Amino acid sequence: MKLGVCYYPEHWPETWWADDARRMGEMGLSHVRIGEFAWSRIEPEPGRLEWDWLDRALEVLGDAGLKVILGTPTATPPKWLVDSMPEMIALDAGGHPRGFGSRRHYCFSHAGYAGECDRIVTQLAERYGQHPAIVAWQTDNEYGCHDTAVSYSLAARDGFREWLRRKHGTIAALNQAWGNVFWSMEYRDFAEIELPNLTVTQANPAHELDFRRFSSHQVAEFNRRQVAILRRHSPGRDVVHNFMGFFTQFDHHAVGDDLDVVSWDSYPLGFLEQFWFSPEEKRRYQRQGHPDIAAFHHDLYRGCQREGRWWVMEQQPGPVNWARYNPAPLPGMVRLWTLEAMAHGAELVSYFRWRQAPFAQEQMHAGLLRPDSVDDQGAHEARTVAAEIAALPDPGPPPRRVALVFDYTAAWVTDILPQGQGFSALRVAFEYYSLLRRLGLDIDIVRPGTDIAGYALVVVPCQPICSADFVASLTGLSAPVVFGARAGSKTADFAIPAELPPGPLQSLLPLKVVRVESLRGQPCEWLEQVETGLDEAGPGIFRHGQLYYVSRYPIDPQIEQVIASVAANAGLDCIALPEGLRLRRTGNLVFAFNYGTESVDLPPGALGKFVLGEPRLPPAGVAVGVAR
Amino acid sequence: MKLGVCYYPEHWPETWWADDARRMGEMGLSHVRIGEFAWSRIEPEPGRLEWDWLDRALEVLGDAGLKVILGTPTATPPKWLVDSMPEMIALDAGGHPRGFGSRRHYCFSHAGYAGECDRIVTQLAERYGQHPAIVAWQTDNEYGCHDTAVSYSLAARDGFREWLRRKHGTIAALNQAWGNVFWSMEYRDFAEIELPNLTVTQANPAHELDFRRFSSHQVAEFNRRQVAILRRHSPGRDVVHNFMGFFTQFDHHAVGDDLDVVSWDSYPLGFLEQFWFSPEEKRRYQRQGHPDIAAFHHDLYRGCQREGRWWVMEQQPGPVNWARYNPAPLPGMVRLWTLEAMAHGAELVSYFRWRQAPFAQEQMHAGLLRPDSVDDQGAHEARTVAAEIAALPDPGPPPRRVALVFDYTAAWVTDILPQGQGFSALRVAFEYYSLLRRLGLDIDIVRPGTDIAGYALVVVPCQPICSADFVASLTGLSAPVVFGARAGSKTADFAIPAELPPGPLQSLLPLKVVRVESLRGQPCEWLEQVETGLDEAGPGIFRHGQLYYVSRYPIDPQIEQVIASVAANAGLDCIALPEGLRLRRTGNLVFAFNYGTESVDLPPGALGKFVLGEPRLPPAGVAVGVAR
Amino acid sequence: MKLGVCYYPEHWPETWWADDARRMGEMGLSHVRIGEFAWSRIEPEPGRLEWDWLDRALEVLGDAGLKVILGTPTATPPKWLVDSMPEMIALDAGGHPRGFGSRRHYCFSHAGYAGECDRIVTQLAERYGQHPAIVAWQTDNEYGCHDTAVSYSLAARDGFREWLRRKHGTIAALNQAWGNVFWSMEYRDFAEIELPNLTVTQANPAHELDFRRFSSHQVAEFNRRQVAILRRHSPGRDVVHNFMGFFTQFDHHAVGDDLDVVSWDSYPLGFLEQFWFSPEEKRRYQRQGHPDIAAFHHDLYRGCQREGRWWVMEQQPGPVNWARYNPAPLPGMVRLWTLEAMAHGAELVSYFRWRQAPFAQEQMHAGLLRPDSVDDQGAHEARTVAAEIAALPDPGPPPRRVALVFDYTAAWVTDILPQGQGFSALRVAFEYYSLLRRLGLDIDIVRPGTDIAGYALVVVPCQPICSADFVASLTGLSAPVVFGARAGSKTADFAIPAELPPGPLQSLLPLKVVRVESLRGQPCEWLEQVETGLDEAGPGIFRHGQLYYVSRYPIDPQIEQVIASVAANAGLDCIALPEGLRLRRTGNLVFAFNYGTESVDLPPGALGKFVLGEPRLPPAGVAVGVAR
Repeated sequence: MKLGVCYYPEHWPETWWADDARRMGEMGLSHVRIGEFAWSRIEPEPGRLEWDWLDRALEVLGDAGLKVILGTPTATPPKWLVDSMPEMIALDAGGHPRGFGSRRHYCFSHAGYAGECDRIVTQLAERYGQHPAIVAWQTDNEYGCHDTAVSYSLAARDGFREWLRRKHGTIAALNQAWGNVFWSMEYRDFAEIELPNLTVTQANPAHELDFRRFSSHQVAEFNRRQVAILRRHSPGRDVVHNFMGFFTQFDHHAVGDDLDVVSWDSYPLGFLEQFWFSPEEKRRYQRQGHPDIAAFHHDLYRGCQREGRWWVMEQQPGPVNWARYNPAPLPGMVRLWTLEAMAHGAELVSYFRWRQAPFAQEQMHAGLLRPDSVDDQGAHEARTVAAEIAALPDPGPPPRRVALVFDYTAAWVTDILPQGQGFSALRVAFEYYSLLRRLGLDIDIVRPGTDIAGYALVVVPCQPICSADFVASLTGLSAPVVFGARAGSKTADFAIPAELPPGPLQSLLPLKVVRVESLRGQPCEWLEQVETGLDEAGPGIFRHGQLYYVSRYPIDPQIEQVIASVAANAGLDCIALPEGLRLRRTGNLVFAFNYGTESVDLPPGALGKFVLGEPRLPPAGVAVGVAR
Repeated sequence: MKLGVCYYPEHWPETWWADDARRMGEMGLSHVRIGEFAWSRIEPEPGRLEWDWLDRALEVLGDAGLKVILGTPTATPPKWLVDSMPEMIALDAGGHPRGFGSRRHYCFSHAGYAGECDRIVTQLAERYGQHPAIVAWQTDNEYGCHDTAVSYSLAARDGFREWLRRKHGTIAALNQAWGNVFWSMEYRDFAEIELPNLTVTQANPAHELDFRRFSSHQVAEFNRRQVAILRRHSPGRDVVHNFMGFFTQFDHHAVGDDLDVVSWDSYPLGFLEQFWFSPEEKRRYQRQGHPDIAAFHHDLYRGCQREGRWWVMEQQPGPVNWARYNPAPLPGMVRLWTLEAMAHGAELVSYFRWRQAPFAQEQMHAGLLRPDSVDDQGAHEARTVAAEIAALPDPGPPPRRVALVFDYTAAWVTDILPQGQGFSALRVAFEYYSLLRRLGLDIDIVRPGTDIAGYALVVVPCQPICSADFVASLTGLSAPVVFGARAGSKTADFAIPAELPPGPLQSLLPLKVVRVESLRGQPCEWLEQVETGLDEAGPGIFRHGQLYYVSRYPIDPQIEQVIASVAANAGLDCIALPEGLRLRRTGNLVFAFNYGTESVDLPPGALGKFVLGEPRLPPAGVAVGVAR
Repeated sequence: MKLGVCYYPEHWPETWWADDARRMGEMGLSHVRIGEFAWSRIEPEPGRLEWDWLDRALEVLGDAGLKVILGTPTATPPKWLVDSMPEMIALDAGGHPRGFGSRRHYCFSHAGYAGECDRIVTQLAERYGQHPAIVAWQTDNEYGCHDTAVSYSLAARDGFREWLRRKHGTIAALNQAWGNVFWSMEYRDFAEIELPNLTVTQANPAHELDFRRFSSHQVAEFNRRQVAILRRHSPGRDVVHNFMGFFTQFDHHAVGDDLDVVSWDSYPLGFLEQFWFSPEEKRRYQRQGHPDIAAFHHDLYRGCQREGRWWVMEQQPGPVNWARYNPAPLPGMVRLWTLEAMAHGAELVSYFRWRQAPFAQEQMHAGLLRPDSVDDQGAHEARTVAAEIAALPDPGPPPRRVALVFDYTAAWVTDILPQGQGFSALRVAFEYYSLLRRLGLDIDIVRPGTDIAGYALVVVPCQPICSADFVASLTGLSAPVVFGARAGSKTADFAIPAELPPGPLQSLLPLKVVRVESLRGQPCEWLEQVETGLDEAGPGIFRHGQLYYVSRYPIDPQIEQVIASVAANAGLDCIALPEGLRLRRTGNLVFAFNYGTESVDLPPGALGKFVLGEPRLPPAGVAVGVAR
């Protein structure tokens, strides 16, 4: 695994560049990402391209032996461009413009802006496509950040109508698919259809789901155009995009299919603070992040690239600026997060950013260097871990032991119709993942329809829409499969299946969910009334051969116990880990990570022969062993 | 009492209709409501009316012996109609359109839309006004649902100006009435007046109150036009509208005055979750609803029709889809709610809906039948209760024992100027009602000015504006009258009376409220400083002969004790009921309902001779006795 | 010190005026403020001025010996004026108009409205500038109330562009100062710059800060125009404006520089309820207000006028109407607040208002008189305190013992980039102030750059931007100076100083803040990592000679202890006061105020010889002594 860093030469005096590059190399970094917000410097006026500074920057970085990942600048179109086509701005659900002044101020559906992106990406790729320092391209930056995957602009409305026409063919088919007879919502023509915002009460969920699909499609299409241009002009380089954490506004599998490498931006402390974790968890893990946040995304995004190639494009190096509260990582956490990415198979971990910028929006976001260019804590840990990585044996391929199925459409379905406040397919997936990890298991997060032969255990936390392909992929498996509540509860058109939930899964599991209820709680308590002749493996947990259906949520000790027992029976080596400790096996290495605030003793024998660390792990400690 | 169900033939294959109708009859249902959302099927294109399907549906239902309530479809105008007059859309208080895509997307003040409603209602009434299966008409559906009684459109603004001109005559009179000299808000002409939204801080409360009155007037006017058409073309049939729960955005007494029957839509579990109840109450009663929610509305809406005719048009049959959390009713609750409606004098209880729709917005809303047409829990209970009702003696007329005065204007006054967060006239009325019910009393909720001679006790929980007629109706009563805080605290023009609160009530009660204060709490604690020579019947409770003034809120044990003693002295039979148990007398029958989760023993002798149930009531249990 | 009252002759029958004026005098009031909302009565139609009523009102008041403060009516332009120039309306951050119907419905940047204000103020000043009854003018009313200091209108945008051009000179200089290279936010021309609202995510903080400065500048400019007109036509009268509590949307020092007297509107109970105090404090002090709220503002606003002249223009006389909960003051509090203003040097305390208005928005706001003209509690206390004040010795000049530095720009900086939720420079200043007051100290709140020679102790709670002048003012002081966290953490252009925080203060304090973190809490916990060779005077408290840097927040007992010890060593007489008790020395008088709900014994000897009250203070009690 290699290390890298995000760098913005345009932010610093040119006289600093060479020294910065030299220090990167000395720190053990081999890669540097640049350029993704630099449009106003590349093209300060319409049509006037200024390449000189970028030529020089690439030369300096290349001369220092650094490998460059060059970003396309389309996340931040300059003001002159926006002024030339003001309707390129996205509108929010309230119909308000999301204008210039920060970033991502564009609508994915605007043809004029797409043309400008084609132009600038082509110009960039033509100029640098063959540059020896460039090893990869990043398209745009964090698609969807700040809720930008969805726009309610006129361009989006027109695009949606056309997309619906292509999908449904006739307006009668659409009316039928959506159930528009309900509340007289029937249309006579695709041109009558509006976006599902500004309605008096909730729009038709089928309408909303198709709009989410359309919006996701627009993101993938936008990315695909850049990928095609970059591949044409820069063959042999990796094309990559950087995804975010706990973000489901577009189908990352679809975008990942067009990429050579999937990457993501890992900010464990910010994610802990901003998401659904309890106040107690937020306090306990405030300087470490919840022990499953980074790993969950590593395993999720590895599954978003067909060959499993993935990077961390941005790794938190210190306090960030964007959460409600922004603690400093416990000393050692930057090292821990880096080694954990390695344990999950990353090819690269790139820190964000080289030097803390003293100006503009992110001035309180730490870098490896302080604003005064002195090494910050992150730099010390990067240097240490670079040496450790170099000394470790090759981690080998990831194991294929437990497959956990996750699907972006599932998240849209529970967003649109939670039925109980706080029910979210993403959260459910995370909580099943966490349960398995507390048992010491290694998990692949896969999309439905993936070939899952060979896994010892398959878990499907929340999969409302089950396609025929997905059902086929589960048919005849010898491994146990555990389904969580709401499996098969919706058709592709967002209706309850005629045969009732779990719909097509009834061919595997002879049971019917005849009623659901949700009770107060955070997350909501979810209970299903099941009609079946099957026995219960636990309260509300039905078993049919190797198939299990967990009709309840949230996960409680009874569910944990059943799953632990299923896993053990499937030959998996389950260990009840102490709070905050996590293990990860890959190849013949076993990694252990202590996310807790107390020292912990590793389970005897769990790591085999130690090649890093010791059996007693301090807070933020890491140990690595070679399995016997 | 009869049973019925809400049915949407347009949602199901025509081949199912006959079997559905047959099963309704077998289940003990005699009535069926249809049609209220079917405009797009009745008139799929402008001017092209398609009656055939509706003719056939009525024929099938009529042939099965069912009595049909036909709804006018004006709650859901089709898209083509909206596109033909886009300014018919209501605007919210922020000035944003509330557009097509769900329901109730119209402004009550738009003349063009009113004309279209006249047309379609006339066409419907002309065609089916004499149809033998039709016994009643429902106008529109749930006026005001999703906060739609109030609109801030241009049509509303123009209508409001005209309404003000008719009410106040001259602009000088309006300026005087509102006190516009305060903050230079004086107008020179009615054409200068805007709606009271989008102001920098709160608008003049007199301005707001007149706008609430106007908005309510527009709803009544909208309804009255439909009633007139239906009466003209379909004489002899009942005209009814279905009101909602805990909803005060228009004057239901005024709308009720134009109806033959008032009905309401009873969803006890959703109302418990969505309203002001404490987390503890929400947990305790999650599967039953608070024991006074259904009864409160039964008694309120019975009082909204001059002859006391009322129905439950929609009765919750299982979990709903629209609350934050949606529990399933405890088994037996559907039966209990049905019998409770009978005990309060309903002529009809109609379940919503026949079969759970597997598509569109309400796909998670239970029906009597599951989506796969199998009887759901609600069907079993409907069948049971239908037989029980048939076997019970006639309930006889409601008693006239306790009158509780409620007025919609009071709710507007406390909405507009709560003075202490959480103070709401509706909530206060409910809490006094609940207090009286915990004493085992039977209550009529009446509008101010109703003839209340003959009642043993009169309670006026919160009546800020006291008209001369109301004061006259209380003068010379022999029964005790209990007034809650804020009585007589405002003039009709939303000012403090010159003689201070309780204003005109001082002719009955020699006291003055010289100061009020509100303290932190949920609801707020409300304390009045009273100047009087009267004695206190309890702390802050002043007595003058048979008249009592409770100057505090919320209700506490001291207030309860005084009221219990007043009731007992008035000859009422007070019983301190166990938590969750409620009684209701009507004619010579006594009903008992157990809303608790534990079995409870009825007070010995409370029910006389049992004709249903036993002295020990299980959870969701009902007993009926004949008074000796 | 004199007493006065706010009076609205236009609200009452003219026949009442003379009696009202007589009663004011008898109550001990010498001043009366009138006219500030009367535009619609002064000019009921464009150009038609009606002076007669105001002539008569002034005559009646003057004849009764009252001194009149006449307000300009520009906070409430009439509807006809707004309709003549609709674009004078401010827009909120969402782009929505803040229209007519309450007050303050204007944009400070609108040239047309500014012209109308010039006209009406000129006409008013020409007519009454030499009137013998008039002793002072109030400009407008409560600038910024209801968040009106900032507007996002086109007029504001154009004004902002021009202001930026004047400030930065060239667009290149602005791009450099703001760091617009970050995220391609660079502009080619000032005409490309938008207001910092409606952006996708946070705008550049430098952009926001300049917009806050511009908005503040517009307020000061608006006020300055009125002051100039009034001085021209009414020489020798004081010009005053009434500020609010806990309000920082414009630079009150800048506005104060143009005034003869600074006044503020003191509502201790409402401020307690609406601001950051804990639920426990809100309950404990619900009828008194937090013991430091009034004093903090007295000391703050005394510092906003160059000669220290200040008034309370509106003093809460009973319950108000605008907080979530509106308790009545404990009997005695109106007297206490009045004497406390005297203790802090006020020249005048004016009660708001004479008689409670029974109509319009503030009908639940108490006056000295009840709506029925009977004396309310406030009147009794005003009468008492008027006599007491007359009997007290002259309070003498305020002491110069402790200077606490506060700057409005600091509040904007922490608003814009709190970095930890709940961190607010205003709150930090209040909490340091409160700490010092609990030690029995007397404080001047001064702007940075004030001459602070002669103070025994200087405290700088939160001063992110430290100008060279400010640093110079601290250089060579013999008194100890205590700096709170974030001192010197930003340049004037909202960047981190090149030498890191505390930036230019490093010339005084040899330390560097190399990292900050914020942790969950309300307020957030703020921790700084400091690089220094200095010793710690306590955990995280660094000392260099007489200079202290407190790198943590919130204030805890360790910080309190260090500051108490610094104060004691500086020769200040520190007393650990009981909860709720406060002292204030001025001249040779010592005042004691009991904000608690229990009686309390004064520290022996603390007051010297008693001239008012006794050593045991009841709740709401006041004592005054002459220092020996």
